[in-house]
Amino acid sequence: MNKSERIGFSDINITGGFWYNRQKINREITLDSVRHQFEKTGRFHAFDYAWKEGEPNKPHIFWDSDIAKWLESAAFILHKNPDEKLMSYVESVIDCLERNIGDDGYFNSYFDVVEPGARWTRRNDHELYCAGHLIEAAVAYYYATGKDRFLKLMCRYADYIEKVFKIEKSAAFATPGHEELELALVKLYLCTKNERYLTLSEFFIDNRGLGTPKDYFSYQARIYAQDHLPVREQTTAEGHCVRACYLYSAMADIAKLCDDEALFNACDTIFDNISRKRMYITGGIGSTHNGERFTGDFDLPNATAYAETCAAISLAMFCGRMSLCNPDSKYADIAETALYNGTISGISLDGKRFFYENPLEINLSERRATATVSKHVPISQRVEVFGCSCCPPNVTRFIASIADYIYSLNDDTLFVHQYMQSEAAFGDAKLTMETDYPFDGRINLHIEGMAGKTVAVRIPSWCTDFSISEEYEIRKGYAFVKITDDSFTLNIDLPMQAKWYEALPKVWEDAGKIALKKGPIVYCAEGVDNENIFASFVDIFESIEEGFDDSIGVPTLTASGYLKSACECCTPLLYRPVKGDYRPIKMRFIPYYAFANRGESDMAVWVHKF
Amino acid sequence: MNKSERIGFSDINITGGFWYNRQKINREITLDSVRHQFEKTGRFHAFDYAWKEGEPNKPHIFWDSDIAKWLESAAFILHKNPDEKLMSYVESVIDCLERNIGDDGYFNSYFDVVEPGARWTRRNDHELYCAGHLIEAAVAYYYATGKDRFLKLMCRYADYIEKVFKIEKSAAFATPGHEELELALVKLYLCTKNERYLTLSEFFIDNRGLGTPKDYFSYQARIYAQDHLPVREQTTAEGHCVRACYLYSAMADIAKLCDDEALFNACDTIFDNISRKRMYITGGIGSTHNGERFTGDFDLPNATAYAETCAAISLAMFCGRMSLCNPDSKYADIAETALYNGTISGISLDGKRFFYENPLEINLSERRATATVSKHVPISQRVEVFGCSCCPPNVTRFIASIADYIYSLNDDTLFVHQYMQSEAAFGDAKLTMETDYPFDGRINLHIEGMAGKTVAVRIPSWCTDFSISEEYEIRKGYAFVKITDDSFTLNIDLPMQAKWYEALPKVWEDAGKIALKKGPIVYCAEGVDNENIFASFVDIFESIEEGFDDSIGVPTLTASGYLKSACECCTPLLYRPVKGDYRPIKMRFIPYYAFANRGESDMAVWVHKF
Repeated sequence: MNKSERIGFSDINITGGFWYNRQKINREITLDSVRHQFEKTGRFHAFDYAWKEGEPNKPHIFWDSDIAKWLESAAFILHKNPDEKLMSYVESVIDCLERNIGDDGYFNSYFDVVEPGARWTRRNDHELYCAGHLIEAAVAYYYATGKDRFLKLMCRYADYIEKVFKIEKSAAFATPGHEELELALVKLYLCTKNERYLTLSEFFIDNRGLGTPKDYFSYQARIYAQDHLPVREQTTAEGHCVRACYLYSAMADIAKLCDDEALFNACDTIFDNISRKRMYITGGIGSTHNGERFTGDFDLPNATAYAETCAAISLAMFCGRMSLCNPDSKYADIAETALYNGTISGISLDGKRFFYENPLEINLSERRATATVSKHVPISQRVEVFGCSCCPPNVTRFIASIADYIYSLNDDTLFVHQYMQSEAAFGDAKLTMETDYPFDGRINLHIEGMAGKTVAVRIPSWCTDFSISEEYEIRKGYAFVKITDDSFTLNIDLPMQAKWYEALPKVWEDAGKIALKKGPIVYCAEGVDNENIFASFVDIFESIEEGFDDSIGVPTLTASGYLKSACECCTPLLYRPVKGDYRPIKMRFIPYYAFANRGESDMAVWVHKF
Repeated sequence: MNKSERIGFSDINITGGFWYNRQKINREITLDSVRHQFEKTGRFHAFDYAWKEGEPNKPHIFWDSDIAKWLESAAFILHKNPDEKLMSYVESVIDCLERNIGDDGYFNSYFDVVEPGARWTRRNDHELYCAGHLIEAAVAYYYATGKDRFLKLMCRYADYIEKVFKIEKSAAFATPGHEELELALVKLYLCTKNERYLTLSEFFIDNRGLGTPKDYFSYQARIYAQDHLPVREQTTAEGHCVRACYLYSAMADIAKLCDDEALFNACDTIFDNISRKRMYITGGIGSTHNGERFTGDFDLPNATAYAETCAAISLAMFCGRMSLCNPDSKYADIAETALYNGTISGISLDGKRFFYENPLEINLSERRATATVSKHVPISQRVEVFGCSCCPPNVTRFIASIADYIYSLNDDTLFVHQYMQSEAAFGDAKLTMETDYPFDGRINLHIEGMAGKTVAVRIPSWCTDFSISEEYEIRKGYAFVKITDDSFTLNIDLPMQAKWYEALPKVWEDAGKIALKKGPIVYCAEGVDNENIFASFVDIFESIEEGFDDSIGVPTLTASGYLKSACECCTPLLYRPVKGDYRPIKMRFIPYYAFANRGESDMAVWVHKF
């Protein structure tokens, strides 16, 4: 490992460009919109512990986590934009929590109110997951405001969890059914410096996969829960994707904090399995709604992709942590893929509506033709809230803290993992990054107060003809440059051409198909712009025109191709000898993240190659 | 309509070639194999009415139809090959039936034995379907042996059904839930000349679709049961495919017998909907296991095709009847497609094992990758018997009576719909057909005793460069030739070249893909012959070599193509800029009907076009 420490978003201001706009909408629209939906559905009310049998809005086992992620988002936003009204709202939620937390430190609005006798009896019922998210929120709120009331309550909760699970072992299960707590405990340790929290996180991680599977079904259940092998022996990404990547994130944290090479190597092997065999081109993971899970290698169906928004976020989280363990550009490359595609496709451009699933293909004709057949298809238009509404507040906290992904630092080197227009200040140093990334690959990085150190800038894998204004040496995908002056400027040029991509031949679903990328952004064709995307064939030898769609404010790419155009009236037969009856067409593509913002429409990331 | 009468298989001997071998295996292997399985599973025993609660092999609602179809198969075989032992076995089954049939004429081994109180209470429980198959069997046995005991029992049953459903209307439902009885009653009428049976069939047909759907769900249930509209107003093929085509077959029968043009037109419209929008290239129908049903236009998924063996048979039955109403070659073309592809793929080459579903693609990698995901996939290897074992005895009776599809006759014209090496004799006429069809398109037809009439031979739609030894005139796909002599010979040459086919562009599943046909036979590529059929791309401009596979005795076609061959070791990234790393390969194809006869394997009818 070649470790470095994240320069947190708290030290960075996004000053313009892509993420500036996203953060503005997030702060001004999304946070309130999600809160409003959570109020309407009784989620905030559940914190009052006032629900009674027979009333509507019965608390659900994972509601605390929804509120916790919203609180964490609010904290992140307060950290950069102090706001009395927002803070007092958060304080009122903490009031509820303080009023209702048990003497033992336990808080869960479902298990205390709806099923008081069932505490710690059902592993899959998200209890420790909810606790983890509350801890994350408390840490964030402490960092944002310096107020430690919430943090202290959550320390009591963590202490109680330690007592039940580690000391007394009195719960009906030994490790979380939905991982999350592990990485939250690491954050709690880093915030409080109390090593017991780190040890408790390690405890949960080390205790996975120790049972002996008794039969096929219990083995399948264990695989689903990343519990089939001790974590250091796991080599493939298995089971529920979000649970898996939250676990892998915690493993990467522990590997780094404890210099645990074996754990790091397991993370690295699992990362390779994901990125080389089990991930969509958008950074989406999860090939089926059936368990929201990883399936086997190269099984990546497009129309029925699950690719949950939370899963792409969890993959970015895992990648971000791996970059801190060992700056190999493969991690930040995948983080970048998720950042600009599979995470933000989960939220509408107006910031109010969300996808849980992010399919890579929507075929409305097929949907209509099979409407009477009971089979699951992802929704085709975003909605304001879900019954299981984990994704909306996850996107919110992700966007609010996006600057976390830019830099890390160790004694020698400043690593630049992601490019965003921003200013950072820490110690005596000041960093100014000017760029129109992800739409333009020219980056001007001005570094003050770091003479004598090295800056290592990531060369994305999509870029093959970059240039850098100073002498550099490439190591693991980063260009290392000596910082020769206390006021040092580096110009990086990562030329972005629209380019056609293909999947490895083993991906049967994408055989004969291609996808369009420009820089880190994956594009897609929508029915609203194209006559029939499923009967169209792209000519990769023709040039691609760049444009802009004013209606939704996104860049467009227009390719040349051919439409298979046999009309039924002149050829009544469904099957006929192959004919060359194509007619030339233009095919218009928009960024994948912007699909489904202009009404219901066909959509495809992977299109046929002529 | 331009009606003609079928020259039945009883007047025809298949004397060699493709169907001769099929009938030999059917007679010598399949009939006994199916009987053995039906004995083992208690189906024959159920006819004894001896089953008691708690015993194994509880009779099932559709078991009588399994036995009936086996009896009908046995009768067809006895008709051409008298066999004392087989006849006495059939007689023993009829003994059971005679012993247990009610005084009222009712017989049902499930409703009499397992649920005595539930007679005529549940429309979907196959009661009238079982009755229909028993009637068909009785008619066939009477024709085969001249013995009328079974026929008389079934006349009593039909009389009872007339009383309950038409006269007293005392059943809980008005028309069959699973159509079949309608066409059986037509056969009973033709055999007994008792017009009440024809009238009863018309009654059931005319009473469909008269209810008013109360809500969406009841409307969906009606569509599923071909009950959404009066049959003359139906325009699309809907619901359960086998039920649908059995109904359409009876409708065609009635249209012909009653000169009902409106009914014929409805059949024709529905036929066009099937053949132009809702049928696989193999003649398979049914796009989902979910209800074994038609879905919407152009929805024809290959790997999850249902394409039940019985459904292809029922489509052939419908087409055969439509040819008798009006000899337009479009009907016999589709019958031929089903005959040589989607029906006989349902039985192994050794005659012992069966497919219920006939998918057009098997991807073993995908199956392995998704093994933990609960989703339905068709089995990949044939088995000896199913829980719902309708297909095995259906194939058996279909093959035994295949010669039914060859000829029809009216006052002026002898129609030749299908080509099989055979001899036919009726009245003063004798027909000798010499051909190696379906592997060779040269047909020598010798006609004796028909001077002055016309012979009309079908020119298959796959054939564009035929030649005929006498002067002809084409009308609706048939070449009409004057029979100038009492000993008249016609040479027909339908050159068969291997040819690539494509689907209409509206079939999204097949976009960019092609299928190989030679004459009427659809070919497929199997994994056992090819490295990776899902990463292979065929070059349609290269010639196709013809060969033969000695191991299973079928012709082969070998095409040239390219394999996308990127290895993972040199390209660790799952997605990469498009490369031209193809290597030339040969792709071997075998007839689709012969797939899955050499162990479990990948399979595809539709392959990528380079």
